[in-house]
Amino acid sequence: MSDFNYIIDTFFALFAMTLIIVMVPGFAMLEAGLVRTKNVSAVLTVNTLIYAIASMGFLLIGYTVAFGSWDNDNMSKWAAFLFQMAFVGKVINIMSGGVSERVKVIPLMLFTVIVSTLLYPIVVNISWGADFLKGTFLDLHMYDLAGSTVIHSTGGWALLAAIMIIGPRRNRYTKDGKINVIPASNIPLVVLGAFLLWIGWFGFNGGSVGSISSKESADTVALTILNTNTAGLAGALVVAVLGYLRYKKFDITMILNGALGGLVAITAGPDLYDIYTPIIIGIVGGALVELMVPIFDKFRLDDPVGALSVHLVNGIWGTLAVGIFASNGDDITLWGQIKGIIVIGLFAFISSYIILSIINKLMPLRATDEEQLEGLDYSECGIEAYPEFKKSI
Amino acid sequence: MSDFNYIIDTFFALFAMTLIIVMVPGFAMLEAGLVRTKNVSAVLTVNTLIYAIASMGFLLIGYTVAFGSWDNDNMSKWAAFLFQMAFVGKVINIMSGGVSERVKVIPLMLFTVIVSTLLYPIVVNISWGADFLKGTFLDLHMYDLAGSTVIHSTGGWALLAAIMIIGPRRNRYTKDGKINVIPASNIPLVVLGAFLLWIGWFGFNGGSVGSISSKESADTVALTILNTNTAGLAGALVVAVLGYLRYKKFDITMILNGALGGLVAITAGPDLYDIYTPIIIGIVGGALVELMVPIFDKFRLDDPVGALSVHLVNGIWGTLAVGIFASNGDDITLWGQIKGIIVIGLFAFISSYIILSIINKLMPLRATDEEQLEGLDYSECGIEAYPEFKKSI
Amino acid sequence: MSDFNYIIDTFFALFAMTLIIVMVPGFAMLEAGLVRTKNVSAVLTVNTLIYAIASMGFLLIGYTVAFGSWDNDNMSKWAAFLFQMAFVGKVINIMSGGVSERVKVIPLMLFTVIVSTLLYPIVVNISWGADFLKGTFLDLHMYDLAGSTVIHSTGGWALLAAIMIIGPRRNRYTKDGKINVIPASNIPLVVLGAFLLWIGWFGFNGGSVGSISSKESADTVALTILNTNTAGLAGALVVAVLGYLRYKKFDITMILNGALGGLVAITAGPDLYDIYTPIIIGIVGGALVELMVPIFDKFRLDDPVGALSVHLVNGIWGTLAVGIFASNGDDITLWGQIKGIIVIGLFAFISSYIILSIINKLMPLRATDEEQLEGLDYSECGIEAYPEFKKSI
Repeated sequence: MSDFNYIIDTFFALFAMTLIIVMVPGFAMLEAGLVRTKNVSAVLTVNTLIYAIASMGFLLIGYTVAFGSWDNDNMSKWAAFLFQMAFVGKVINIMSGGVSERVKVIPLMLFTVIVSTLLYPIVVNISWGADFLKGTFLDLHMYDLAGSTVIHSTGGWALLAAIMIIGPRRNRYTKDGKINVIPASNIPLVVLGAFLLWIGWFGFNGGSVGSISSKESADTVALTILNTNTAGLAGALVVAVLGYLRYKKFDITMILNGALGGLVAITAGPDLYDIYTPIIIGIVGGALVELMVPIFDKFRLDDPVGALSVHLVNGIWGTLAVGIFASNGDDITLWGQIKGIIVIGLFAFISSYIILSIINKLMPLRATDEEQLEGLDYSECGIEAYPEFKKSI
Repeated sequence: MSDFNYIIDTFFALFAMTLIIVMVPGFAMLEAGLVRTKNVSAVLTVNTLIYAIASMGFLLIGYTVAFGSWDNDNMSKWAAFLFQMAFVGKVINIMSGGVSERVKVIPLMLFTVIVSTLLYPIVVNISWGADFLKGTFLDLHMYDLAGSTVIHSTGGWALLAAIMIIGPRRNRYTKDGKINVIPASNIPLVVLGAFLLWIGWFGFNGGSVGSISSKESADTVALTILNTNTAGLAGALVVAVLGYLRYKKFDITMILNGALGGLVAITAGPDLYDIYTPIIIGIVGGALVELMVPIFDKFRLDDPVGALSVHLVNGIWGTLAVGIFASNGDDITLWGQIKGIIVIGLFAFISSYIILSIINKLMPLRATDEEQLEGLDYSECGIEAYPEFKKSI
Repeated sequence: MSDFNYIIDTFFALFAMTLIIVMVPGFAMLEAGLVRTKNVSAVLTVNTLIYAIASMGFLLIGYTVAFGSWDNDNMSKWAAFLFQMAFVGKVINIMSGGVSERVKVIPLMLFTVIVSTLLYPIVVNISWGADFLKGTFLDLHMYDLAGSTVIHSTGGWALLAAIMIIGPRRNRYTKDGKINVIPASNIPLVVLGAFLLWIGWFGFNGGSVGSISSKESADTVALTILNTNTAGLAGALVVAVLGYLRYKKFDITMILNGALGGLVAITAGPDLYDIYTPIIIGIVGGALVELMVPIFDKFRLDDPVGALSVHLVNGIWGTLAVGIFASNGDDITLWGQIKGIIVIGLFAFISSYIILSIINKLMPLRATDEEQLEGLDYSECGIEAYPEFKKSI
């Protein structure tokens, strides 16, 4: 490695890391816009504390668990750390969004400590890191460039465990089987948040190439960002069309979830495809969001932001897609992808379920019905999000 | 071209492209803040779909129409594409903002398909691209670094055609000649949007230099960004002063439109001026906004966001300014600039007018008075932007 | 200096500058969220005009006062200017936020002219610039990488002078010694603004290293950004814990102020510490915010955004911390740091006090009680921030 590579790749990692940190306000705005006004401060508090706790936990413990050593020859070790640190909060953001409007802050923060120091670092360890499973029969041969499985499905499995333990929001499902629609409170924030995520994804996936300092890697980074964007476009468009065909309306929150679904799905292999394949991957990704959101509701898995469909389902789809479409086939097999999905899925779901169950015994994760009725802003934060605006409901 | 140039210019193009994509939420927030709450979801839907459709159209067809070939020796061809792709939605954003609160989504999206695959690519072809007019008497010799004419006036001419066909918002102009003031609904979003646009402009103009990998080009990029910013500052300040002199108040929406006017005006030649000329260009640009907004209203050209003044008028002014002030004069003549303005203006206006008229026959572009009264959020989206906030009007 | 260094450092300065400009909407959103709805447009106008006036003043006069010459061998002189220009508005933003809800626009803009052309450039001159005190007994030997003292305390001292002259908001302190709590009006904007500031800080501190084009400087930049982030994390966490212990609630506005306090405190020497020291610096920084906010209120120094605690107190603490913790000790002494704090503090406070007093004679800085009751949006801007939302208070 020459100084040139070291310098340029350090700069590039810092650029990519900065874009990923833009996803912190991205998730915060998206979720603040999707929940009711009485839970907005709580959601924002959770997002802020997740960033603080998860990053600190990864600095003090998690990074070493994942990679064994901080040494790095290819770029500044501090830049390499920062890039990886930028990921860790996302896993818990994915999970926290889906249990918003009824989850209590402190037990969720306990879970954040464990995910950032242990659970997520173990997933990284066996996927991208030191790999303590190497040579065993569990040795994974999954290709997952930027984390369709490692980040998104892991967060999605944790969310599924959390929803099963915490249950739906008060009054979401009535006894006679109806579903009460709970509208998003602030659509501009939803759009702002979704586009901050979209832009952050360029750093997420582009930066995961790991280098831009050769002609080949510069091409790969550019192709990665192009394909990332294309899958997002396709996901948005297919949901716009499908939604319009069904309802004769354009539901902007679903369209954006379609885009995010496409972005999750491309994340496993944006560097492997030609420039048209991401259209297929994004179309399937968006369609899965449109299809799965009502199905999860049928199973009474209450997910106010659609994170199960966006992150869990599309994390799986994206990882499979690499096995189906990837052209540079050396090591990549469909079976290797499936094995990775299963091993990490089982580990993430079971360990999350156990940890959350234990936390739930210590202090309930679920806010009481009274607290939910009044809104978590009151019970958790003592702060209204919009105290001056008269409420119509 | 050495590998060094290729790598650095690819990285730089990706940086610049990312900044331009920041303009997508920029336009969305600006317009969402300027319209009434009952039309906010519709405006956000339009902005999101424009990004999705225009980018996809440019990927599949438009880029080839504009440039003939994807080959690029100077940087990764994917980065070169991404940078150009980031521009295309802007043209339609400019147009869509000015017809908001009464335009229907589907016919506007039809127009977006045509602009992104054909109309805008033809403008690029004869200005920056393959140039099928080369050698004919229409061969343009216009200097337009980042698109005062190619982007902003083109969008502005399309908007003028659209306003003429669609007409003003219901109840905007009364029969006795009065103008009903329709106040912006969310000023923080306007400010946020304007600054996201401003920051995106650094990538827009800086990236248009095309290279940062030599000492000279690094200087040119830095000068371009400096001059871009200065024109924005001057545009804001002159409107603040003029507005205060007239009304003894500071109208923040007009001040920001002044800044945007200055930014549009500098866009044709930020690389050509010394560091003081942009002050003049921005002052004239801001003054034109202050002057023209009421004049367009007098002609009953209803433009809720001031896009005609900001983009069309200042696009023309900025392109002329290159002919007036540019110091590196080789090829640049005032006549060349005027010819470019006229040729592209005629093409953009006439083709937009014809296409929009045809679309309007197929399905009306204008929402009915009832739909406008109820708000487009209801008829187009079925989603209120702020369902919990009691409305005072 | 080779061309390589020149090119890469120009690119890096432009990247860092762009991040700092993100702090303009950052401050605007933070402050717009913290004040009452009736003062939101005024706050946004002030933030916008500060950026316009301060940047223009620095371009025309201030930069030359600070550095003597525009020449620069290490990077494009335009990029070097842009990076420094991005700082100047911050000093006045810090000050304007703390007097919001009662300061009038025009006299504040007069002060902005003087700060950006003279007061702040003199502070820079003796700290980072041409240094006209060199060789005198006042010659400073303070280490202040990115401006804990030069930016944050300077702004904080100006704010203290302004608060003393302008007084508290109408009705903030009652005659019987009670403090009326005035709640923030829009919490999502507060969070968005705080994170835009946080992200901007990476450019603020990282860019202040001045170069990324050698292996050593690339390491220093990465370490600087890592340490910057860590101090922010620690500041947020300590306030979350302390606040919860006292009130059993999580006050998100205080948590974010804790983060900002940590960020201010690390700013003097993020390049000097190992990766754990910033945790201590951030913890103290956050604790100082938690401690000082009520103390300033006891002294009836009314500061709606907590800027005295965040910027003044932590600017001092951060500058001292370099003297206490810095490992590369060559030139750095605790006494040198204290001397810098005192000299710049005296200069900034006294000159601000005199200038503001003179301005106050010419035209009162303070809005009348009637204007405050009605809201500054009405008297200064003639524009409501949220005209359609019914107010509950």
